[in-house]
Amino acid sequence: MQILEVAPRDGLQNESTQLSTDDKVELVARAVSAGARRVEVTSFVHPKAVPQLADAEDVMARVERVEGVRYAGLVMNERGLDRAVAAGVDEVDIVVVASDTFCQRNQNMTTWQACDVAAGLVSRARDAGLFTTVTIGASFGCPFEGDVPVARLREVVLRVVDARPDELALADTIGVAVPSDIIDRAGCAIEVAGPQIGSRLHLHDTRNTAIANAVAALEVGVETLDASIGGAGGCPFAPNATGNVATEDLAYLFGRMGVDTGLDLDSLIDSAVWLEERLGKELPSALARAGGFPPA
Amino acid sequence: MQILEVAPRDGLQNESTQLSTDDKVELVARAVSAGARRVEVTSFVHPKAVPQLADAEDVMARVERVEGVRYAGLVMNERGLDRAVAAGVDEVDIVVVASDTFCQRNQNMTTWQACDVAAGLVSRARDAGLFTTVTIGASFGCPFEGDVPVARLREVVLRVVDARPDELALADTIGVAVPSDIIDRAGCAIEVAGPQIGSRLHLHDTRNTAIANAVAALEVGVETLDASIGGAGGCPFAPNATGNVATEDLAYLFGRMGVDTGLDLDSLIDSAVWLEERLGKELPSALARAGGFPPA
Repeated sequence: MQILEVAPRDGLQNESTQLSTDDKVELVARAVSAGARRVEVTSFVHPKAVPQLADAEDVMARVERVEGVRYAGLVMNERGLDRAVAAGVDEVDIVVVASDTFCQRNQNMTTWQACDVAAGLVSRARDAGLFTTVTIGASFGCPFEGDVPVARLREVVLRVVDARPDELALADTIGVAVPSDIIDRAGCAIEVAGPQIGSRLHLHDTRNTAIANAVAALEVGVETLDASIGGAGGCPFAPNATGNVATEDLAYLFGRMGVDTGLDLDSLIDSAVWLEERLGKELPSALARAGGFPPA
Repeated sequence: MQILEVAPRDGLQNESTQLSTDDKVELVARAVSAGARRVEVTSFVHPKAVPQLADAEDVMARVERVEGVRYAGLVMNERGLDRAVAAGVDEVDIVVVASDTFCQRNQNMTTWQACDVAAGLVSRARDAGLFTTVTIGASFGCPFEGDVPVARLREVVLRVVDARPDELALADTIGVAVPSDIIDRAGCAIEVAGPQIGSRLHLHDTRNTAIANAVAALEVGVETLDASIGGAGGCPFAPNATGNVATEDLAYLFGRMGVDTGLDLDSLIDSAVWLEERLGKELPSALARAGGFPPA
């Protein structure tokens, strides 16, 4: 199972404490050193929208590139894509949201409008030689509309697949999915997308289901899971709850199950503790509290 | 899936804050009111060993019995069994530990000696008309010896099964199991025990795997899972870590998967918050933080 490390982007973008550019560069280096082969480094959105990532170009310029690692940036529009290309990313992550209400609030357009924008961005990014991945937010439930029907999600997947991205991801943005949802919805996406388009899941542990969902993802054939060192990055719709699943929690799970992730658990735990110090708060990581087993 | 509520015993026995007898009686009533049909009410061990549960007889005497609910007590020896019978429990939980080192520290005897003691207790409790359940501690790993081989666990299961208890449980006492372990070990126990002996699992969420393990338990045919309101009850071998899996987290999981537990999620969340107030601390429950989905 491949892990895409998202702490530098999704992990930091909602934090009240802003990390220095130096610390962000170190966080990326730590992820790579722990075995990550894909890292979402930053977001090329307007600095006013996400001031935490206003130094996107600086971070990309100072990251020491390691061969075999893909460095990614999130883009929402043409301007963001221009910046990402200029900054030298290897891949771009493009977002649409499965429910109209949430999509309007997130990017000020309907889901179908967002799919059209995404198609244009995929086409241009592909022409620029970049790997393209499209994430469908709220694929398992919407904080405003509640349940998102599978039939609706299937329609959104069909529209996204039309643009032929290299990869398609479903995001459990508010952490409501259970394993049967993963089987149904990731299974649907994989079937609709076909073998030419990679499959990825973005899981949140808000309701303690992310690790169970990761096991279901493995069973249904998902290739890549997003994860965040320390579990950094909360759930904006459940302010006191856990957000992104912790990379080290996934590393423990898959390690003990004999599933290769290429990740080093002790190195991840060390980085989770380092990130807690930098952010000045405890992160939700279970493994940073409990340690691995059996002890080294 | 049947849930055995263990907050009144396992949830409270390591807490520094001692609940009043009134509060313990209320906790049991809350569990039953939320749908629990088995509750581990208390422990009949020496009050010096577990001062938190020194009022075992008082709690049992004051619990208002509801038809169809079984009220259980933990017993370690003959004296404890006498007290449990006198107190009017419906079932007794008897413990052995799969590794000798841990068994010596827990009950001052080897695993085989503990199996002999358990056999005597099962026989006497059965004669007294009680339901008997034996829990094998450290079935998935030992804090002192590390990995516990499946072959060793199988031997312990064989010895316990010889005593013909009504039910046999494997406990992940230190929270190290992953789903493949559940399939292997609970599968082994179910096969060795045969259809006449019920199967139960005691899961800890120390390394964030309890919910995934609960799904594996469902797949392999485990009938009953222990859980604790709020996730009360830490892991004594990982002091800062999460312990018992939270009842409401399991209720959310199974509820969204369409698996009947008879539990009411909102009632459990309400009781988790009540227990946090009584203990004066935040408990690990994810659902108490995030709330159910879709919102009521």
